[in-house]
Parts: sequence; structure tokens; C-alpha cells
Amino acid sequence: MRALILEGGRIRLADAPTPDRPGECLIRVKAAGICGTDLELVKGYADFSGIPGHEFVGVVERAGQPGDSHWIGRRVVGDINIGCGACLQCHAGVKEHCEDRRVLGIRKHHGAFAEYLTLPSCNLHRVPDAVDDHAAVFVEPIAAACRVLEQASLGPGTSAAVMGDGRMGLLVAQVLAAAGAPVVLFAKHDQRLALARAMGLQARRSPDAALAAGDRFDVVVEATGAADGLARALALVRPRGTVVLKSTVHDPAAIATWPIVVDEITVIGSRCGPFEPALDLLARGAVKVDSLVTCVAGLEDFERAFREAATGLKAVFAVS
Amino acid sequence: MRALILEGGRIRLADAPTPDRPGECLIRVKAAGICGTDLELVKGYADFSGIPGHEFVGVVERAGQPGDSHWIGRRVVGDINIGCGACLQCHAGVKEHCEDRRVLGIRKHHGAFAEYLTLPSCNLHRVPDAVDDHAAVFVEPIAAACRVLEQASLGPGTSAAVMGDGRMGLLVAQVLAAAGAPVVLFAKHDQRLALARAMGLQARRSPDAALAAGDRFDVVVEATGAADGLARALALVRPRGTVVLKSTVHDPAAIATWPIVVDEITVIGSRCGPFEPALDLLARGAVKVDSLVTCVAGLEDFERAFREAATGLKAVFAVS
Repeated sequence: MRALILEGGRIRLADAPTPDRPGECLIRVKAAGICGTDLELVKGYADFSGIPGHEFVGVVERAGQPGDSHWIGRRVVGDINIGCGACLQCHAGVKEHCEDRRVLGIRKHHGAFAEYLTLPSCNLHRVPDAVDDHAAVFVEPIAAACRVLEQASLGPGTSAAVMGDGRMGLLVAQVLAAAGAPVVLFAKHDQRLALARAMGLQARRSPDAALAAGDRFDVVVEATGAADGLARALALVRPRGTVVLKSTVHDPAAIATWPIVVDEITVIGSRCGPFEPALDLLARGAVKVDSLVTCVAGLEDFERAFREAATGLKAVFAVS
Repeated sequence: MRALILEGGRIRLADAPTPDRPGECLIRVKAAGICGTDLELVKGYADFSGIPGHEFVGVVERAGQPGDSHWIGRRVVGDINIGCGACLQCHAGVKEHCEDRRVLGIRKHHGAFAEYLTLPSCNLHRVPDAVDDHAAVFVEPIAAACRVLEQASLGPGTSAAVMGDGRMGLLVAQVLAAAGAPVVLFAKHDQRLALARAMGLQARRSPDAALAAGDRFDVVVEATGAADGLARALALVRPRGTVVLKSTVHDPAAIATWPIVVDEITVIGSRCGPFEPALDLLARGAVKVDSLVTCVAGLEDFERAFREAATGLKAVFAVS
């Protein structure tokens, strides 16, 4: 099959064997999105060699287990974590923190920038007809945005801010707004500010004016993708408030931790989230993603797609 | 009255006017302890000029309000935060996060390294006879240690580690142990390791061996006083575990935040805590502090006392 291979910090298009993992379903990839984590992988994060890509939609072509045959022909998205099944974390149902986990396109498991991938059927979620292929590519990052709702208390009286006008920032702000939280998105670029407002979001320019006015938020979600994002978020959160970190940035930054202590801030790292609420938000149009797709490319056009992912919004591979 | 004055990063003994705040009780200081925060104040933290000192025991000599006369002659310790009384935080009962708060010996309020100080009667707590003056000086830091119990869930099955063999580390470890949590104190110095074990604590040398063995803890309390304490604590905590930060260090350190995100760690800043449980722990001998006092000095001997606080354990001023 055709696949993008990441090796030694370089990506190339190659012929690769079709994956064949015993017990896992074979899925023909229809479309796959490039995520910030993929850009970090190219820089050396997680020391991954293989086929990257973890945001995808596809069609099940072969069942993994005898009981899986009803999946064949279904259009699916998939949880990216595959636990060992034997450890304490797996028994507690949090396979995303299994120490021996494989992660689609990130860790010990070939990913979605290819014609085929495999996943266990327990990772699969059926995509409703109301969600088209390009929208379905966003289920995984929207699920990650939904994770914030599980971690931070966002009642009606709660004020929330999202820092970062990239893909993740725009998704998190929409998810929080859909959950009824009054949320302000801080956007660095005029174009993104306009885009956010067109999505119905309350958006403002970078937080300097808010800081000067003494505005502070109960919950601040950091999705800037910048190494010093935590330090910037700490300036915007009220005492005893919560900062949720979404950016996985590999570089260290100079951070003074005393404001966390003096203001008793809670900082929560936030990774993968639940797929079903994400599918529901997309199906009922509560999260809009059409305007986020700024590049659709074939696998052979990967250089352009990765350039777009680094500077623009979502680049999607149309695979089959 | 005699008092230590901090100005421009230098401390001197001086004659100062006896404090006279309308509505606050006048307290004759019996003894006062030097804390890590005092050492930071001398380095410029919080830009404080005035009389430092916030760990004290004293006797009420004059009532602040008509209803306060029953306090006269009582031996007391005191909450260090004085809220404005008007803001949202004060109305919510969290005066320690009032933006306009005064803080004894730290912010806009003269402190305890003097013959007298003032505090509102609502800040005062009577000291039981079972707790002598030198032990009572530890009520404020033990209350700060008790704050950890309010913030981190420490059930019977929870494993906890405390990093740091200084005053705060030794107090936090004792408080967690008294609450029934299996707690390991990581000590850097042989002498402190011995001291911790003499207190009945489970103590180990620096966490390198634990790290090599793959040991991870549900809750890690960082009390090293080092700028990179957060980074070190992150290495010791299990996925979805909690790091509690107790050190208020002014210097920034290079910190990579991605492990917080990938392992979904919760980092909680922890400052002041409840006085009543602290007094109770001292009164029933559940927290031992005698061996922590390594220097007793008069105010005039402040240079020796501050040297001892920087290198040894607790230096206490015997004031009156």
C-alpha cells in the first residue's frame, strides 16, 4: 500500500506492507488530518519511526475477531490508544495511560497516513451519515477538546478563556461554548479573530488588554502550542482558578512556579477525550469545522500538506 | 519597640513605633520563627519593606474591638492573611486570596520579628497549654502542611511522596503520615534522613533509586525549595497523579510542560492552611517539632539566626 513513512525526522512516500495485526480490524483510510502532534513527531518528539497520522475516518474491510463481522463496511473513526489489557491502568479502563500502550501513528503502531491501518474493534466508533469525511477527521481532536469538560468544572457562573487561535484553540472554544460556558477566545492573528467570530465565538485580540484591565478567568485553557504557554496562562487565571494545558510542546521554557503556589492555581494536563460526545457535537452542528479545512491533498502531496499544517489550519489527506 | 527592619534587601535591628492599627488586637510577641519565605523576602520577593516574620506565638495585651476583651492575656497564634472584607473572595471566606489583602510580615503589614504586632481578633487562635512557645511557632507552617490534605485526595490506598528534607518537607511528611497516608520522604542529606527516621517517618535517599526502579506515586508534594522542583516532581508521579507545590521560589527554571499533558498530571499550588488541625496535631504529639529547632536567638542576634535558617532547620527568635 502507499504510505508516508517518518524516519530520522524526514517523511517520504513509500510502498509499505498492508498492516496485519492479529485480532485487529483492517480499515481502509478515507481521509486523515495532520495535527500539531504530527509536526512535533517530525521534530523528534516521542522518538517515533513509522507511519504517522492518528486523526482519520475509514471503512472497515476485515474483522479482527469472530464477533467483529458486523463492523465490516461501516464508516468509522477510532480511539488512538491501545492498552496492553493486563496492567492496572487497563483494568481501571484508562488504556490511554497504560505504560505499554501503543498509540496510532505516535507510538509502536502504524498510523493513518496510509491506505490502510488496523485497530481493535473496541476502539471503533461508527460515524453518523450527518458527519461527512472531512468533518469526521475532526472527531479525535474534538474528543480531546471534550476532555476539558471532564477535568475542569464549568458551571453557568464560570468564566473561561481559551488561549490560542490554532486548530485546537478554535475547537476547545466551540466545545466549551456548546457546553454553555461563557468563553472568550484570545486570538493572535486578525484573520483567526474574524474566523472565530464567524463561528459565533466571543473572540478578542491577544490578552494584553484583558491583563491591563485586570480581567481574570476561572478556567484558562492553554492551546497556543508555545513552550511558555503555561506562564502566559498563569497571568490570566484568577486565584484558585484552573489552567488546562492542551499543547504538547517538546521544548522547555523558563517558568517561575511561585504564582502557582501563591494563587493556589490548579494546572491540569489534558490529552485524549471521549469520542461519543464529539460525534454528537459534529452531528448536530454544535461544533463547526468546515472553515478549518484549509488544504486537501493526496498522500503524494505531503510536503505541501505539512507546510500548510505548520502555518495554516487543518490539512487533510484525501486517501481513498 | 525593638524590631528587625527589612529595607533594600538588608535587615537591621532598630527602634520602631509600636504598631497601632485601629480595630486590631495588640499582641506581645513571645517567639517567632524564620521561614523560607523570609529568606525569599530578603532576596527581593514580594518587594516587601518593613518588619518581616509571620510565624509567631504571643500574648494579647490590648483588645481591638469592644467584643475582644476576652482575648486579653491569652496566648495566641494567628492567621497571617487580613482580607479587605469587601471583595468577592472575602465574602466567599477565602481572605488569603483577597487581592487587597495584607499579610503579616509579607505584604503591607508589619510582622513578628518585633516586640509587638497587631492582628484582627478573627485571625487569632488560642494555644493549648500542652503546646509550648517554641512548638507554637510551628502552627503556621503545620497549617500550611495541613492544606495539602484539603487539596489532594489521600485515601488509604494512596501512595504519597514528599520531596525535600527541609522544615516544610519534614512537616508535610509528618502531617500526611498522621492522616494515615503511606508516605515516603526523599531526603538529600544523610543527617536529615536520620532525623526523619527518628521522627518515625519512612525516609529514603534522593529519588534516583526509586526512579530507576520505576516507582511512581499517586501524590508527590514538592517542598525542595528548588526552582526546578516541579520538573523533578513530575518524574516521580504516576499518570493522572497529583503534584502539590509548596515551595515559593522566585527564580524561573527551565521546565518542559509536555509530561503534564501526556500523563494528564494535576499540579496544585498550596499555600496557607487551617490552624485548628495544626494545633490539634501539635497538642496530641502527632507532629514532632522539638528536633527541628536548631537555633534560638534574640532579635539582636539576627545575622546568626538568618544564617542558620538558610543552612539548617528552624531558627527561632525568643523575643519576650
